[in-house]
Amino acid sequence: MPSLTMPQHKQLTFYTSPYSPYCHRVHIALEEAKVEPSLVEIDLRPGCKPAWFTNKVNPMGTVPAFTYGGAPAPPDQPSPAALKLAESIVLIEFIADLHPEAALHPKDPELLARARLFITLSHDTLHDAFRGFFFRGERIESILPSLEAFQALLAPSGYAVGPWSMADVVVAPMIVRFMRLAGYEIGKYPMGEGKRLLKALGEPKFARFMQYYQSLWDRPSVKATWDEVPVSCDSPEGRLI
Amino acid sequence: MPSLTMPQHKQLTFYTSPYSPYCHRVHIALEEAKVEPSLVEIDLRPGCKPAWFTNKVNPMGTVPAFTYGGAPAPPDQPSPAALKLAESIVLIEFIADLHPEAALHPKDPELLARARLFITLSHDTLHDAFRGFFFRGERIESILPSLEAFQALLAPSGYAVGPWSMADVVVAPMIVRFMRLAGYEIGKYPMGEGKRLLKALGEPKFARFMQYYQSLWDRPSVKATWDEVPVSCDSPEGRLI
Ligand SMILES: N[C@@H](CCC(=O)N[C@@H](CS)C(=O)NCC(=O)O)C(=O)O
Ligand SMILES: N[C@@H](CCC(=O)N[C@@H](CS)C(=O)NCC(=O)O)C(=O)O
Repeated sequence: MPSLTMPQHKQLTFYTSPYSPYCHRVHIALEEAKVEPSLVEIDLRPGCKPAWFTNKVNPMGTVPAFTYGGAPAPPDQPSPAALKLAESIVLIEFIADLHPEAALHPKDPELLARARLFITLSHDTLHDAFRGFFFRGERIESILPSLEAFQALLAPSGYAVGPWSMADVVVAPMIVRFMRLAGYEIGKYPMGEGKRLLKALGEPKFARFMQYYQSLWDRPSVKATWDEVPVSCDSPEGRLI
Repeated sequence: MPSLTMPQHKQLTFYTSPYSPYCHRVHIALEEAKVEPSLVEIDLRPGCKPAWFTNKVNPMGTVPAFTYGGAPAPPDQPSPAALKLAESIVLIEFIADLHPEAALHPKDPELLARARLFITLSHDTLHDAFRGFFFRGERIESILPSLEAFQALLAPSGYAVGPWSMADVVVAPMIVRFMRLAGYEIGKYPMGEGKRLLKALGEPKFARFMQYYQSLWDRPSVKATWDEVPVSCDSPEGRLI
């Protein structure tokens, strides 16, 4: 019988899309918590998204989304009794609450607060830089200051706030995409600019950023959830492999 | 001796401003948790904000902000060892984590997830409506659809998600301001529009909204933290009492 003290016994359906960095966050969190949900891929291409998804799962129409609990049901007809959730950070907090043994919520409330502040502060910086470089094709000169500001938010060593936490889960998809896509010269920037970015990040000034990237890249949950097919859900109309 | 298992023994300094709805959230949360911090008022008027606040407490320069722990120190010279926090929702989560006995984080993780989703979904709706009415002086016809959309997010009865939670703490300052300021005809809308709003909200269609407002207004933590001096931190240049 499902019960609140045995949350792992309730059904969890995860509506996802392969190239979405927001979904990637949730895949990492589930991997950290050793939870294996039922996966349902939602086709986000214009005209392809199924109407039932918006009508019955997430009125906002975005992935990632969950249904949790309720009677067993096909994914396009979720039980009315199932909890319907969306928004990547809400989902990550939920996984963390259901699985306190997973390294998502640091036990120390001060570290947890720093993780949540880091998430809030890093979001705009990182996303503006990402969109500027990959989607608007800006040169690295207008991107590097944002990455420097991001670097300044990092704890002096270790992960984002020192120990691994949900802060790392939230930013890993963006950091990994930055580095991997630039290596493949994927994006709207002029050809060669990807390599220039990696070269600039190799300077001593960005040592902490690079060390952080490396520690994310070495994390098994990040590796296991990264498909080396470097496109994004809002795929730049530029180079694709 | 301060310790993590007795967090209440650490110093807490709360940098606040009397008319700020974001600060009001944090005052309600502290009241619910029965915590009495040292209060420091920050003057937000143009040219009045002290430089030390941005330099030493919150680089973003916004209230609410906390310093927590560290050696005793004057508020304009916080201990370098003190945790510096900002962003109202981060602060409320922190209070909830330090005080699990307070009714901020529901014990049921599903309710807690619904509270966090409610916070995310209600924010834009409520703030756009608030700015439109009070700051841009729009007529109620362009505001009521947002309040209806907000109402649709509420649980069928009780508070935002049923039992009281941090969701109510987060929206109470806006809902209370909507109703109280309209009653005083404060805002940029044409005179009489405040009363028209209250009349429209008295229709059966808005019964759930009004019941929710009443339950917020009856909550001791909300009453205790509301100063019936109805102006906002970005005070409308319209009527003020
Ligand atoms: N704030 C949301 C953003 C989710 C989001 O934008 N997802 C994109 C995919 S990367 C999506 O579903 N887009 C499809 C659409 O909006 O129709 C979150 O954190 O989950
Ligand atoms: N997202 C912030 C917003 C805080 C905010 O905007 N505070 C206003 C007062 S209502 C402020 O400090 N403004 C002064 C400034 O930005 O200089 C939060 O949730 O705490």
